[in-house]
Amino acid sequence: MELSDITTYVDHFGFNTVKTFNQRYLVADKYWKKNGGSILFYTGNEGDIIWFCNNTGFMWDVAEELKAMLVFAEHRYYGESLPFGDSSFKDSRHLNFLTSEQALADFAELIKHLKRTIPGAENQPVIAIGGSYGGMLAAWFRMKYPHMVVGALAASAPIWQFEDLVPCGVFMKIVTTDFRKSGPYCSESIHRSWDAINRLSSTGSGLQWLSEALHLCSPLTSEDIQHLKDWISETWVNLAMVDYPYASNFLQPLPAWPIKVVCQYLKNPNVSDLLLLQNIFQALNVYYNYSGQAKCLNISETATGSLGTLGWSYQACTEVVMPFCTNGVDDMFEPHSWNLKEFSDDCFQQWGVRPRPFWITTMYGGKNISSHTNIVFSNGELDPWSGGGVTKDITDTLVAVTISEGAHHLDLRAKNALDPTSVLLARSLEVRHMKNWIRDFYDNTGKRH
Amino acid sequence: MELSDITTYVDHFGFNTVKTFNQRYLVADKYWKKNGGSILFYTGNEGDIIWFCNNTGFMWDVAEELKAMLVFAEHRYYGESLPFGDSSFKDSRHLNFLTSEQALADFAELIKHLKRTIPGAENQPVIAIGGSYGGMLAAWFRMKYPHMVVGALAASAPIWQFEDLVPCGVFMKIVTTDFRKSGPYCSESIHRSWDAINRLSSTGSGLQWLSEALHLCSPLTSEDIQHLKDWISETWVNLAMVDYPYASNFLQPLPAWPIKVVCQYLKNPNVSDLLLLQNIFQALNVYYNYSGQAKCLNISETATGSLGTLGWSYQACTEVVMPFCTNGVDDMFEPHSWNLKEFSDDCFQQWGVRPRPFWITTMYGGKNISSHTNIVFSNGELDPWSGGGVTKDITDTLVAVTISEGAHHLDLRAKNALDPTSVLLARSLEVRHMKNWIRDFYDNTGKRH
Repeated sequence: MELSDITTYVDHFGFNTVKTFNQRYLVADKYWKKNGGSILFYTGNEGDIIWFCNNTGFMWDVAEELKAMLVFAEHRYYGESLPFGDSSFKDSRHLNFLTSEQALADFAELIKHLKRTIPGAENQPVIAIGGSYGGMLAAWFRMKYPHMVVGALAASAPIWQFEDLVPCGVFMKIVTTDFRKSGPYCSESIHRSWDAINRLSSTGSGLQWLSEALHLCSPLTSEDIQHLKDWISETWVNLAMVDYPYASNFLQPLPAWPIKVVCQYLKNPNVSDLLLLQNIFQALNVYYNYSGQAKCLNISETATGSLGTLGWSYQACTEVVMPFCTNGVDDMFEPHSWNLKEFSDDCFQQWGVRPRPFWITTMYGGKNISSHTNIVFSNGELDPWSGGGVTKDITDTLVAVTISEGAHHLDLRAKNALDPTSVLLARSLEVRHMKNWIRDFYDNTGKRH
Repeated sequence: MELSDITTYVDHFGFNTVKTFNQRYLVADKYWKKNGGSILFYTGNEGDIIWFCNNTGFMWDVAEELKAMLVFAEHRYYGESLPFGDSSFKDSRHLNFLTSEQALADFAELIKHLKRTIPGAENQPVIAIGGSYGGMLAAWFRMKYPHMVVGALAASAPIWQFEDLVPCGVFMKIVTTDFRKSGPYCSESIHRSWDAINRLSSTGSGLQWLSEALHLCSPLTSEDIQHLKDWISETWVNLAMVDYPYASNFLQPLPAWPIKVVCQYLKNPNVSDLLLLQNIFQALNVYYNYSGQAKCLNISETATGSLGTLGWSYQACTEVVMPFCTNGVDDMFEPHSWNLKEFSDDCFQQWGVRPRPFWITTMYGGKNISSHTNIVFSNGELDPWSGGGVTKDITDTLVAVTISEGAHHLDLRAKNALDPTSVLLARSLEVRHMKNWIRDFYDNTGKRH
């Protein structure tokens, strides 16, 4: 595997600045064949590309079969691909070029560069592959640059988690279902925990007890309570995303089926507040301290540092505006409605920008995408993001692949002895589609000559 | 017809500035039917939208048959749609938002706005229509926003006049052919004129004679000679573009088949330099003074003031980089090779920006566009721009319509008793395609419900 850089424009859509930056990418060509081969292009998302590369074993597993060169492109403003170095997140002026459109243009320039500089690559079909936001980018890349890629595998890509394309509550409802199915009274215990926290945090001694019971690194004040509850909620969300059938280390090191492990501590909702919160701690500890290394829990962190939380927060505040809500009835969380005004004000305070919540749909078509071709949308039924994903075929060539036992882009992970049948089937379908795209490409190339 | 404004973002692709401007558009709904109707959307190009509206009679002529609402959208930085008012062309900072991508985003926002605000428009098919650069925009709009328009009529759209997609000499070769076919020795006379000008301009008395013989508004100096020759060349180019079969007023008021009229003055190439240039004056005078109003000829102007020459010059210096060349053998001009370095330096001097000549192909696919659908590319064989156009079918739904007796987007002009059969056939083909797109739209809508 080779680590490289391409010098690319900071602004592809304006000519006033000629500033460039170095975008990182990885190339692996062990199984690549110049004759009849292909190029699998990972459309990098909100994190370090090496980390994504290490968590996308699927591409490595199919490289030989597809005679494929693997390329992993880092997304601008993440990892080491920082347009303004340390100043990249300084203010909205420096962040102005962090958009999906600029990222897609980076990918297009990179593919052109590879085809120009690698002998044999020029006349080969390229397939975009990505997961999560990277899956959205893979789909959008095929939609906007179909001359660059013959198809896209968009794994766990919630391209419809915008505006009112899906109900805002669907995401947390799926999280809740995962917990409900993973152990008796598990979701009920969590449901009850919020009021217990509220009661305990109403007194100074309660706050102190809570800080100690949860082994927090810093003592809680009453102002921290909403933040504490958000942190706990996000923990459950993350567990739903990485509820994989084998021990893994994506967002955190975790055992197999981690929600089942968590739920072993959450069997009794009808206990005292103190006992309930001690159980909640045991559950959180599965997520934050499976390795046994953590001395305390830090409510400022929920996942690996390989993800770029600053950049993602900015993107969520501009283009990638995803409405979420809970009602406490269909889900195990405290009720919280989606409030665009409040969200916008928070964004303005944090970044000096306001979201444009309708832009993504204007740009990428929302549900009206049937004129595009050659995109496989895969979704795991355990994955909360599947709620905003494409889970039914749209046309013969815009197809949905559903993985009943899959969490967040399980299909993109390396093969594992504990893989459920549903993900094996999904991968084989995906490979079949990719082979068809490659075959069609060569058939058409043949006809042209 | 109603003139309106929409408030739209100056920058659709960045969130640092929230500045907006007013984009003008026209709506005509005399023949529009809410039941089974359609929306014909003119993707405005480099000029005043009212002027384009008045020169696109085709849309008016087919409105009733298609039960169509007509919309004419003005392109940003042209007409009165100036993002920074009088400062819009001040420097590269103010011009930074003059790109085709921003223009397409404006169109997308405008269509959303119309569908949201005009009762009955929401569930109707929209068809993009444009000519010349506007035709490129119509095609590109269908390629990039297929969820917004069911198809596009791209008239005389030279989407391949970029990089080396077509030979750089094809444009001037077609101009030359037009003159060669329009009268005996016509192109030879023009071919000979350049050396005659060079000889005359080598002396002070020759320059004075030339200024008077050509009735120029300002006397020539030896530094003006290249400019003079460029102006004369552009006049022949413009005549080739507007060589319509009836008297018209697009770039200038002109008689029917103006090149034939011009060529009546250019039958004798083998005359003295003085007589040849006097004949050239008579020929130029057809173009610049058909109305008989001009007291003198101004070598700073070649066409109507309704076109935005400043904006277009900037666009040609950034994205819309079209290589042109002549060799004096296949064409009637002085040899001039395409020199990107020189072009880039000129652009930098004029606008402080340098062209990115490969970007348009990266963005819009160059010749690799076969995955798109529902675009009709029409071209007139007399039109020099047809050299960079799509003149052969690419697929069943990316079709070429050729008009043997047509100049620049003759098909978009109002019907005329003197229309040749070829343009009547072209228009009926175009209408047939549009009707198919509309029918398919309603068929699919029916199926969904």
